[in-house]
Formats: sequence, structure tokens, C-alpha cells
Amino acid sequence: MAKQERAVRTRQALIHAAAEAFAADAYAVASLSAISRRAGVSAGALHFHFAGKDDMAKAVEAEAAGFVRQLAEDCRSTAGTALQRLVHTVFGLLAAAGDDPVVRAGFKLCVDPSRKSEADMLHWWAGFVRDLVLQAQGEGELAQGVSADDATTAIVAATVGFVVIAMVDAEWPSVERMARFWSCILPSLAAAPEGVLASVTRGDQQCDRVR
Amino acid sequence: MAKQERAVRTRQALIHAAAEAFAADAYAVASLSAISRRAGVSAGALHFHFAGKDDMAKAVEAEAAGFVRQLAEDCRSTAGTALQRLVHTVFGLLAAAGDDPVVRAGFKLCVDPSRKSEADMLHWWAGFVRDLVLQAQGEGELAQGVSADDATTAIVAATVGFVVIAMVDAEWPSVERMARFWSCILPSLAAAPEGVLASVTRGDQQCDRVR
Repeated sequence: MAKQERAVRTRQALIHAAAEAFAADAYAVASLSAISRRAGVSAGALHFHFAGKDDMAKAVEAEAAGFVRQLAEDCRSTAGTALQRLVHTVFGLLAAAGDDPVVRAGFKLCVDPSRKSEADMLHWWAGFVRDLVLQAQGEGELAQGVSADDATTAIVAATVGFVVIAMVDAEWPSVERMARFWSCILPSLAAAPEGVLASVTRGDQQCDRVR
Repeated sequence: MAKQERAVRTRQALIHAAAEAFAADAYAVASLSAISRRAGVSAGALHFHFAGKDDMAKAVEAEAAGFVRQLAEDCRSTAGTALQRLVHTVFGLLAAAGDDPVVRAGFKLCVDPSRKSEADMLHWWAGFVRDLVLQAQGEGELAQGVSADDATTAIVAATVGFVVIAMVDAEWPSVERMARFWSCILPSLAAAPEGVLASVTRGDQQCDRVR
């Protein structure tokens, strides 16, 4: 194996070990020695790749953000109306957080008030939701009297809350609960909630091309 | 001033200085020396009252939790239907977080994934919302087809998300945005949303007896 390829693999192994540590324990208590042990890498190799824990957290966040944005773009380009694609994206992200410790750690780090997140996934997510809601508005999909701003606020607040509660309560997140959540709020937001709701029940099978 | 009274005052000054530090900066970066300086107290006095930063955070959380539970109980006993009282409580908590650094720090600490929160405000809040939603159900206030579980999920997720986003984006929280949020989701949840909505517009004037 070429030296450069080995370095890339070591770095990836460290990022994944750090993500597992940050997702399972808290960022503040995860130790660098446990991370290097988990990755099967020496402390020296860890310090060759990363200046410290904050540097590792930034690398985990960057990888999670890249993956999440790609997944979201993928969901945005599936068939269906703008609201359907938005709902599919949320299911895709929920599934990714369940499957992948890097995504889970990325979500956890971006709502961690003890760090300044550079990936700024919160503002990216608000922008992503707003884009699709504006499309939905353009296509006449929003219920009468609901502004794009208000629908964006409700959807961003609820989805962020879902993720945060999932971080502290492993019982909370499930496809069923998310489906019931949408079936509960869509009648307020959508002009024809039944059409969106029909797609909700198959939402967990969507957007899995990059998983 | 009696010795005991002076000790109580010093402890309170330290809790308030710690809350200001945790609310303004992050928990992880707030320093004990800055907190004792802010409280006008010596480092020795700080260590007489608190074993360390985690101990101070626990005291801030306990004080915030006590205040918030009292405020919520107060709102729960105002006039109106169960859903109206729930909406009033949320406005009351939003106003308290704006007014009081102890409440703000308490919210921030309880969603901080780098700490294990002992106050467990998240589960308390989920239980509080559930109680009022069950009352609303008993009084026929929920929209047809909406279960108490689903309404609780939607309201808990959205309100927690609102608080978390407010922690990282000072532009976000406002009485107007919260009022529009409720006017956006209530039509799905309430059998007669207009009655609840009428009270929303005066929601910011409610529940201020303990402020």
C-alpha cells in the first residue's frame, strides 16, 4: 500500500473512531487515547493527523456535513412535489443518523452549545427547508393563509427538536413516530395533506441511494 | 448581617454569575476565575460553596428548573382551556428565557450533550405537555383523528427545537415568531383553533405573576 493511501486510511479510521466516541459518550468526556485505541492507531499517528480533540470534532463535522448535504440533494432530486421531497429528506436524514455514527456525531456536535460549530448545519438546514417550502408555495402546495416563513419556522423547529431529543433519549426516534409527527402537522401546512401523507408511509424507503 | 445570611447571599451571587457566564459563553469555556470575579467573591469563597464547575452548573440547573416548574404550574392554573394554558406556558417560558440568565443557562445546560443533566427538564417538559394534551383530549379540544401521543410529540419536538435554535441564533426567538408558529400548527391539532389562536395574540402578557 502506498504511503499516501495508508495515511488516508489512518485518517479515516481516526475520524470514524472519534465519531463513535462522540456519538456514544459526550464530546467533553471522549478521550484521545480511547479514540486512538479504538482506531487501532498509535497516539503519535493521531497527533500527526489532528492537533487535538477540537480538530477531530471539526473533521467529523465536515464529513457528516458533506454526507448529509449529498443525501439531502439526492432526496431533493427524487420524484414528487416539493413537500413530498422535503418529507423524504427528513426520513432519509433520520435513517442516516440511525445507521451512521459519523452523521449521528455530526448532529450531536452541531447542537452542542459548548462548541462553536464551523459546519453550521443549522443554518444550512433552515436554508434547505426554506428553498423547498418556497417551491411548494410556488406550486400552490401550501395551505391557504400559511406563509413560507411560518411553514419554514415550524418545520425547522420541529425537526431540530426531534434530533436533539433523540440525542438524549434513545427511545425517541423512530420512523413510526416521525410518520405520525408529519401526519399531525401537515394538515395545517399543506393544501392537500393526503397526497403528501400517502408518501410519508413509504418515506423510509426513499433517498437510500447514497446510504 | 448574620453569617448564615451572608453565606446564602454569596452562594446566590455565585449562581447568578455562573448563569450569566454559561448563558453568554459556552459551559466548556466559562472559567471559574471569571465567575468569582463577576460575583465579586474570592476564589476561596467560590470553592467553599462549590466543588467545581460541574457543581455550579448543577446549582444553576436546579434553580432554573425550580423557577420554570413554578412558572409552568402558575400558567397551568390560569383561566382558559387546556390548550390555551399550554400555549400560555410556552409564551411564559420564552419570556422568562429572555428576561433571566438563570433560566437561559438552565435551558442551555439541559440540551448540552456534553453533560448529563440531572434536572432532566426535557422529560419533565414532555410530561407537562402530555398532561395538558390529555386534559385537552378529555375536554374534546383535540382535532378529530389526532391522538394525545402525536400531539405531544409534535409540541415537544417543536418547542425544544425553538429553544435550541434560540441558543445558537439570537435573532430567532421572538413573541411574534412564536405566535406565528402556533397559528401555523394549531389548525392540525385543535378542534377549534380560532379559540386558542385568539388567546395566542395576548399570550405574551400571561403567566407573569412570578416574573
